[in-house]
Amino acid sequence: MARPTPLSGFPEWLPEGRLVEQHVLDTLRRTFELHGFAGIETRAVEPLDQLLRKGETSKEVYVLRRLQEDADAEEQDPGRRLGLHFDLTVPFARYVLENAGHLAFPFRRYQIQKVWRGERPQDGRFREFVQADIDVVGAGALPYHYEVELPLVMADALAALRGIGVPPVRILVNNRKVAEGFYRGLGLTDVDAVLRSIDKLDKVGADAVADLLVAEAGASPEQARACLALAEVRGEDAGVVDRVRALAAEHGTGTDLLEEGLAELGALVTAAAERAPGVVVADLRIARGLDYYTGSVYETVLVGHEDLGSICSGGRYDTLASDGATTYPGVGLSIGVSRLVSRLLNAGLVRATRSVPTAVLVAVTSEDRRGRSDAVAAALRARGVPVEVAPSAAKFGKQIRHADRRGIPYVWFVGDDASDGSPRQDEVKDIRSGEQAPADPATWTPPAEDLWPRVAPVAGE
Amino acid sequence: MARPTPLSGFPEWLPEGRLVEQHVLDTLRRTFELHGFAGIETRAVEPLDQLLRKGETSKEVYVLRRLQEDADAEEQDPGRRLGLHFDLTVPFARYVLENAGHLAFPFRRYQIQKVWRGERPQDGRFREFVQADIDVVGAGALPYHYEVELPLVMADALAALRGIGVPPVRILVNNRKVAEGFYRGLGLTDVDAVLRSIDKLDKVGADAVADLLVAEAGASPEQARACLALAEVRGEDAGVVDRVRALAAEHGTGTDLLEEGLAELGALVTAAAERAPGVVVADLRIARGLDYYTGSVYETVLVGHEDLGSICSGGRYDTLASDGATTYPGVGLSIGVSRLVSRLLNAGLVRATRSVPTAVLVAVTSEDRRGRSDAVAAALRARGVPVEVAPSAAKFGKQIRHADRRGIPYVWFVGDDASDGSPRQDEVKDIRSGEQAPADPATWTPPAEDLWPRVAPVAGE
Repeated sequence: MARPTPLSGFPEWLPEGRLVEQHVLDTLRRTFELHGFAGIETRAVEPLDQLLRKGETSKEVYVLRRLQEDADAEEQDPGRRLGLHFDLTVPFARYVLENAGHLAFPFRRYQIQKVWRGERPQDGRFREFVQADIDVVGAGALPYHYEVELPLVMADALAALRGIGVPPVRILVNNRKVAEGFYRGLGLTDVDAVLRSIDKLDKVGADAVADLLVAEAGASPEQARACLALAEVRGEDAGVVDRVRALAAEHGTGTDLLEEGLAELGALVTAAAERAPGVVVADLRIARGLDYYTGSVYETVLVGHEDLGSICSGGRYDTLASDGATTYPGVGLSIGVSRLVSRLLNAGLVRATRSVPTAVLVAVTSEDRRGRSDAVAAALRARGVPVEVAPSAAKFGKQIRHADRRGIPYVWFVGDDASDGSPRQDEVKDIRSGEQAPADPATWTPPAEDLWPRVAPVAGE
Repeated sequence: MARPTPLSGFPEWLPEGRLVEQHVLDTLRRTFELHGFAGIETRAVEPLDQLLRKGETSKEVYVLRRLQEDADAEEQDPGRRLGLHFDLTVPFARYVLENAGHLAFPFRRYQIQKVWRGERPQDGRFREFVQADIDVVGAGALPYHYEVELPLVMADALAALRGIGVPPVRILVNNRKVAEGFYRGLGLTDVDAVLRSIDKLDKVGADAVADLLVAEAGASPEQARACLALAEVRGEDAGVVDRVRALAAEHGTGTDLLEEGLAELGALVTAAAERAPGVVVADLRIARGLDYYTGSVYETVLVGHEDLGSICSGGRYDTLASDGATTYPGVGLSIGVSRLVSRLLNAGLVRATRSVPTAVLVAVTSEDRRGRSDAVAAALRARGVPVEVAPSAAKFGKQIRHADRRGIPYVWFVGDDASDGSPRQDEVKDIRSGEQAPADPATWTPPAEDLWPRVAPVAGE
C-alpha cells in the first residue's frame, strides 16, 4: 500500500490536535449539561425524502447504496433510500416526532455529532464536520424567553473556551418579525426577495443591493433606501429599538409585526447586556436564515477571525416539526466545531501540553522484570495517574528519550535488588529538570498541572 | 410529516439510554487514557478500493454517491469512490501510513466511533454501531508483551463497568501459531481450511466437523480427531500448555512454530491469572479471525449473555499496514459498544437515576421576575450545579410536577419581596421527601449523589 494522501474536505487531526478538539467538545458538553440539556445521538442516516424536503440542499446530500448487486427490495424503492444527514436539525425533528410520547416538553437537548455535505471544500468549510447543537422544543407552544436563553447558553459555552486561547466572540442577532414587519410596512410584499438582496450586502455593496431590490423585490428607489437604512442599524442595547422605530416613523411604516419583533429584540439585547456584556449585538443586516426562521436569528463571529464566517448559528422555528395533530416550535443554535478547531490549530492559537495522556513512563530494567514495572504502573493507575510501561528494556537513556519524544514528563525507575536480595527503593525522574527522587507507587502523585495533558493558549497569543 | 418509524439496524436511545451509553463511553475513554493510549478520530469514509482489499466484507460496504447528476470527475472515477468504514482498523492502518512521520512508535491509540455494515440486522447486530478500539502499532517490529498487555487493558476497562451493573466477562484467547504449528505437525497444510471447519464446532458439533475436516481440509480420520482434541483444550493457567504438548507428543506433531505459540500463550495466561484473575481463558476452539491474525486472538463473552456473541474481539497482525519500505505490526481489540449497551438496556440491567442532567429547577414566580430566577441559576451553575429555570410562571404545584416528570430532585423558590420591600430568603425543596429549607445560591450544593445523574445497576440485579 503506497502512502495515502489526505482527502480534501475530510479533516483529521494528529493526536495533539485531537486533544484540542476533545477539550473543546468536553467543555461544550459540560456547559450544555450545566444548563440542563440532555444529550442525545441520532443515527447518521435519514430517509432521502426527509433530507430533501428543503430543495436547496439537495445537491449536497450523500446518498448511500450497498455495494452488492442483489440489494434488498427496500433499498431499490426510492422512498426508502438513505442519505447521510447534513445537519442535526432534520434528525432532531424526526427524533422528536418518533419519540414524542416518551419525552417531556419543553424538551432541552444537546447533540454533538458529525454531519456530511458534498460541497466544494474551502477554508473552514468541510465535507465531513462536527456540529454541537442545542435546541429547546415545545409541544404546541414555546415561550419567547427561550430565544433569549439559548444564545446566552452558547455565549457561556464559548466563554468557557477563552481560557485555552479561543478569541472572544460576537453573537449577532436579528429578528424575522422586525425585518418582515418593516418591509411590509413599506409596502414590499416579496419579503424573501428583499432578504435575498440584503444578504448580498457584504459581497456587492449598498449600491448594487439597491439595484437588486428594485429589480428583484419590486422596490422603488426610496423603498430600497429604507431597506438599506434598516440594515445599517447595529447596537448592543435597547437603543437599536428606538433607531428602528425612528426609521419606521420616517418612512411611515409601523406595523404590529414590527412592534412585536422590536419588543423581542429589545428584550434579548437588554438581557444579554446584563448577563453576557459585550457579546450580543443586534445587527439588522443579518439576513441569512431569515427565510426559514420565524423569530430570532443568530450568527456568531470570532473576533479577529471574521473571515471564517459564522461559527455558531441558529434561530427560532415556529414549526420545527409537526405530525398533523401537534406542532413543535423550537429554538436552537449549532456550533461548527470543526470550523472552530481547524482555525485554532491552523492559526496556532491553542496547543496541548503533550501528545499522549501518559504522565509517567515506567522504565523496564530487563524483560524478565517487566512484571514489576507492570505492577508499579497498575498501582499508579489505581490512584488515577495515567501511566505506560516502556516498550523494551533498552538502556535507560533510550527509555528516557522515548518519554521525551512524547512529552511524558516523568520516568519511573523500579528499584532492583541489592546484593543481599532486598529490594532497593523506586525513584522517579522529572526529565525536564533532571531532578530524581525516591518515590513509592502507593503514594506518589505528579503535580496537578502534569497529571493530564492540558490545552492552553500558545504563548504570546 | 407523519409519525416516523425507527429504521431497523440503526439503534437510537432515549435520553436515559444515552446517559448509560455516555457513561460506558466515558469509562472506556478514561481507562484507555490511564493506560497511555492517545485518542484519535478518523473520517467516516475511505476510498472504496481500500475498503475492499479484504474481499469477504465487500457485500457489507455502504458506498457514497452525491445526489446531483453533475458529480465531480473524481467521483466518477471508480478508483476515487468513497465508502463508509466498516471497522476502525482499516482507517487506523491508513492513518498510520499517512502520518507515520509525525507519530512516535510504538504508537498507542484508542478510537471510539461509529462504523457501518449493510448486514441484515439481528439482536446485537446493527447496520450502524459504535466501536471502541485500542491498538498498539510498531514500526518494523512489535514485542510480544503487547499481546499480553492489550487484553488486560480491556479487562480493566470492562471491570470498571461492573459497578453500573455490567456482568463479568471472560476473555477467550487462542494463538494462530499454536493452531498452525499443531496442524502442520500433523501433516495438514491447508491451515485455513482446518480453521474454517473448527470454526463450525459450536454450530454443527464434533462429528460433522470431523467429516468437514476430511472432506475439505484433506484430513485423515485420525488427523481430524487430533484437531478436535486440540479444540477441546481450555483453561485459565499454564496447564493448557502442558495439555497441548501432551497431545502433540501423542500424535508426534511437535513443531518449532507450535512451541513458539505455546510459549506465548503460556505467558499470556500466566500474566493474566496474576493481574486479572478469572478473566482470561485459553480456549483452543477459538478459530474466528485466525485466518488473518498472526499471533494471539481474542474474543470476549459477557457471562450469562453468551448468546450475544463476542463483545470485544481482536488479535495480533504482523502486517497491520505497510508502505513497502516499512511494515507496521499491530495488536488491538475492539469493544462492540452498541451491542453491549443494547443488551444492558434491553435486558434491564442498568438504569440512569434521571433522564436530564438537571439537579435543580429554579421556579419562576412571575414572568417579570424571570431575571431573578436566571440569576439564581447562574450562581448555582458557576459552582458546578446543573440547573434549569422553569418554562413558565405557572402555579408552583405545576412547576414541581414539571421537575418530577423529569426526575429533577430539587425545586428552588426565589424569595419574593416582603411588604417593606426587603427580599425574603430563597428556599429549596427536595421534592422526593417534601423537605424545604432556606438556601443561598452562593453556598448551597446538593448532596454528591444528586449532583449529576448516576448510572447504576437495576435494583435486584
